Amino acid sequence: MSFIQVESTSDFSYHNLPYGVFSTSDNANHRIGVAIGDFVLDLSKVAHLFDGPLMKNNQHVLQQTTLNQFMSLGHLVWKEARLRLKELLSEDCPILRDNSELRQQAFLERSKCIMHLPAQIGDYTDFYSSRQHATNVGIMFRGKENALMPNWLHLPVGYHGRASSVVISGTPVRRPVGQMQPDDTKPPVFGPCKLLDFELEMAFFVGPGNELGQPIPIEKAHEHIFGMVIMNDWSARDIQKWEYVPLGPFTAKNFATTISPWVVPMEALMPFVLKGEEQNPKPFSYLQHDDPYTFDVNLEVNLKISELQEERTISRSNFKYMYWTPKQQLAHHTITGCNARPGDLLASGTISGETKDSYGSLLEITWRGKEPILFDSEGKVKRVFLQDGDTITMKGFCQGNGYRVGFGECSGTVLPALNIN
Amino acid sequence: MSFIQVESTSDFSYHNLPYGVFSTSDNANHRIGVAIGDFVLDLSKVAHLFDGPLMKNNQHVLQQTTLNQFMSLGHLVWKEARLRLKELLSEDCPILRDNSELRQQAFLERSKCIMHLPAQIGDYTDFYSSRQHATNVGIMFRGKENALMPNWLHLPVGYHGRASSVVISGTPVRRPVGQMQPDDTKPPVFGPCKLLDFELEMAFFVGPGNELGQPIPIEKAHEHIFGMVIMNDWSARDIQKWEYVPLGPFTAKNFATTISPWVVPMEALMPFVLKGEEQNPKPFSYLQHDDPYTFDVNLEVNLKISELQEERTISRSNFKYMYWTPKQQLAHHTITGCNARPGDLLASGTISGETKDSYGSLLEITWRGKEPILFDSEGKVKRVFLQDGDTITMKGFCQGNGYRVGFGECSGTVLPALNIN
Repeated sequence: MSFIQVESTSDFSYHNLPYGVFSTSDNANHRIGVAIGDFVLDLSKVAHLFDGPLMKNNQHVLQQTTLNQFMSLGHLVWKEARLRLKELLSEDCPILRDNSELRQQAFLERSKCIMHLPAQIGDYTDFYSSRQHATNVGIMFRGKENALMPNWLHLPVGYHGRASSVVISGTPVRRPVGQMQPDDTKPPVFGPCKLLDFELEMAFFVGPGNELGQPIPIEKAHEHIFGMVIMNDWSARDIQKWEYVPLGPFTAKNFATTISPWVVPMEALMPFVLKGEEQNPKPFSYLQHDDPYTFDVNLEVNLKISELQEERTISRSNFKYMYWTPKQQLAHHTITGCNARPGDLLASGTISGETKDSYGSLLEITWRGKEPILFDSEGKVKRVFLQDGDTITMKGFCQGNGYRVGFGECSGTVLPALNIN
Repeated sequence: MSFIQVESTSDFSYHNLPYGVFSTSDNANHRIGVAIGDFVLDLSKVAHLFDGPLMKNNQHVLQQTTLNQFMSLGHLVWKEARLRLKELLSEDCPILRDNSELRQQAFLERSKCIMHLPAQIGDYTDFYSSRQHATNVGIMFRGKENALMPNWLHLPVGYHGRASSVVISGTPVRRPVGQMQPDDTKPPVFGPCKLLDFELEMAFFVGPGNELGQPIPIEKAHEHIFGMVIMNDWSARDIQKWEYVPLGPFTAKNFATTISPWVVPMEALMPFVLKGEEQNPKPFSYLQHDDPYTFDVNLEVNLKISELQEERTISRSNFKYMYWTPKQQLAHHTITGCNARPGDLLASGTISGETKDSYGSLLEITWRGKEPILFDSEGKVKRVFLQDGDTITMKGFCQGNGYRVGFGECSGTVLPALNIN
């Protein structure tokens, strides 16, 4: 245990120790920190204490403004750094515990920290790896018989997303303007998106990359995965429907993608690893791994509508519902020789469970708008898609025995569209 | 005219002055240079001579290892820098002409320069803006009646590409390995791509970006466009066909995208501006501009097959065949509020003219492989798609009166696939 007291329901137990990048009102410099309980340990202030054989010559990576360099160093370095962190925070270790001056400098109240993107994201990729989500969307748009596309069970379908508009939790999201075709028999119209949606996802950051032309073998994939965050892949359904044939989603998704600020290391997630769904047909060998690599992360989506004070949980899901694992996603992404780089972000795709109360988007929860979410008994206050002023907050945690390994919040409020003709 | 002699058929006349990033065998530092004739002017050596009102406090941008900072400064700064360049290189100006010591330091033989990516590319986007190309592909896959998708004439269709694998001309391209379904009635297979193709494109670099949530109005788009290069968007047709539904091309295009190294400023292209095809239906106002903004750039694709010594020109095309303009592409890309950043790369999509000898891909030239390119009279030496050892070299230039504004080469040789099970 740590000399820092942590409540049992806190996301940031001694078993978690996620990395993030923060600043404070009196110091605008971006610094790397570790969350524990209600505090943040400023690693720039304690970098000199990381004096293990691998970290002693790499202390400067803890004094950067992003995690990219630390991510690039690989899993053995991460392991050593984490062990040292656990030691430094342990109730048995006097180094920090008994140095009140250093503690004063190095610990900050988490509520006073302003969070920033944890890494410079070179490329962001979004997969489509929840079978229930792909099935739901398939039924809606192509009918039950053809719900899953022929390729879906053979490879983790994905697409390249927009890296520039990945934003940190708390950033307001401007309702996008664009082209839509609300009536298939009429010409398209231009204006603010009317079918604004969220997508509940998780995403992982790549650690060491690979050379162009040299795929990452699935046996090595874990060593290239640094940690995970929660993601909201905001989506303009009406813009998407009109634009996406034949090259996929483009402006319907490039206006904002929100991530939670604390990157939970894979090592903190490994105690919660689960065997995923049996894959049938058996994938090609470049996608095969026998060890379990999906995770028991409780996820929830909360909607606070502008008319009411209290938020409501509109979905409870779990990362374990993924069909394709992060290892399979990374192996597939690089099989053609595509080079990954430290700080690349690979997202799961919308995570939907088997029942309506576990679906990961309004598209599915309201079944294309046909089944509104009712907020009063008379059905006057309701939602099918997001309205201006609405806030979506996603949360997630692994439940240990008396502690949590959690992700904090991934939150965003919808701003009204700009007035563009 | 310049005191540097330039042949009339050189791509790099005094009227061009493109920017690039280079190193030399005796100095591995990446430096910004300007090509003129057979020489490169090393701007890091003459940065102090840029003493105009806008550049005098920004000379450091010419001493960076990429063009991003220079790109970010905007069109008025680019204009001033270009005027000063023209002055410094003019036969009437003694500053460089008569300073043999500085000339010795600042001019290098172009053939000895090793070229690098001109900018750190934050995001790379590929459009699909040639009507003939979209029509050809549409006829092949959907028949003549439904060749163009309903959205195609309303918006510049595009998708997010992979930034990490954009490489500079001369980089070898490893044949990708992946999943394909050569026979629709059978399960997919795994192995080296058999239908490896090129795509003739041009691309522009973004200068100043825009804030997230604030689209770039089309009236301002030109001020955000720095300059252009030639691009080969290498494509694995068989992988693409199997993977691309419903989210678009992914691993079929993420293994390599080659660009020419010299970025030709928009100002050098403006004398060759042309009015594009009349757009019918008239686009929404956010996509309307009355001034011409397509360009008369002669393009050619040369194929050197491994069996023969000489290369053959297999396509002659022109950038003027584009339906959607770069201004329209940038306005559309940002209309939802997506933020562009300096150094972002936006590509045209395959450029195909109206006749077979002007098509921009082997897919079209050989019409899905049905009409091979014959290299001998007996039909023994032929190509439908690219073989290992083949080299594709693209070139392009605007023809002035006795001079050219050209792009140099965009070249790549196919390496055999790795042996992966």
